[in-house]
Amino acid sequence: MSTKQNLEENLEFEPQFDENGLIPAIAQDAGTGQVLMVAYMNRESLDVTIQSGYATYFSRSRQKLWKKGEESGHRQKVEQILVDCDQDCLILKVTVNAGQCHVGYQSCFYRALKQNSGKDLEFIEEKVYDPKEAYKK
Amino acid sequence: MSTKQNLEENLEFEPQFDENGLIPAIAQDAGTGQVLMVAYMNRESLDVTIQSGYATYFSRSRQKLWKKGEESGHRQKVEQILVDCDQDCLILKVTVNAGQCHVGYQSCFYRALKQNSGKDLEFIEEKVYDPKEAYKK
Repeated sequence: MSTKQNLEENLEFEPQFDENGLIPAIAQDAGTGQVLMVAYMNRESLDVTIQSGYATYFSRSRQKLWKKGEESGHRQKVEQILVDCDQDCLILKVTVNAGQCHVGYQSCFYRALKQNSGKDLEFIEEKVYDPKEAYKK
Repeated sequence: MSTKQNLEENLEFEPQFDENGLIPAIAQDAGTGQVLMVAYMNRESLDVTIQSGYATYFSRSRQKLWKKGEESGHRQKVEQILVDCDQDCLILKVTVNAGQCHVGYQSCFYRALKQNSGKDLEFIEEKVYDPKEAYKK
């Protein structure tokens, strides 16, 4: 295992999976910069993502590989993979052509905490597709 | 505890802390959209962040509150807090006036996986400050 400094300064990709064998991955729209979603990858899903060019995650609830868009068709074409200083988080810069949140929004981050409130949210996006239609296939 | 659907459709902020009492938080530059860093919050650090208007995280390595910039001065003014569909991840839209990565870069994501490589990184940013100076104080 590399030292902390090596991880930070080197050019060797050594993703640091956690005790469950997972690393968080942020899917960010390569064009607009919008953060679309955050999911987790295990070693296998990362390898599949790199080899296929399309984002594949590991579903913690289903405990299996999750090829993003396999049901909805709303895939993520991976343009670039970034890693942070201590290599325990990834960003996938992706191109998409449909909403990425299963609730129907472009991004999973469709609500914000209201100003001067610690508990009330407000919607900051409109839905861009009907999940009932997308997941019917 | 709320149902999955409530968490997704309601306007009640109910951050879902994990088994360690933590939730990941993405700091994103409110102006440029650049993802600056990812860190974790416990309930207390989230409350301090909301009340103070400046990002405070929970350091997993030091197991204590980590007021971002308390040593370097490189603080994050929080403009908006977003939450994702299942409320287990946050985005802090922040304004900054100095590099945010302790290695000296604006963002912790200063390296990308080289095209057609599964193991070689390349630098995609230049350092914006000298950490030796910033952390000397």
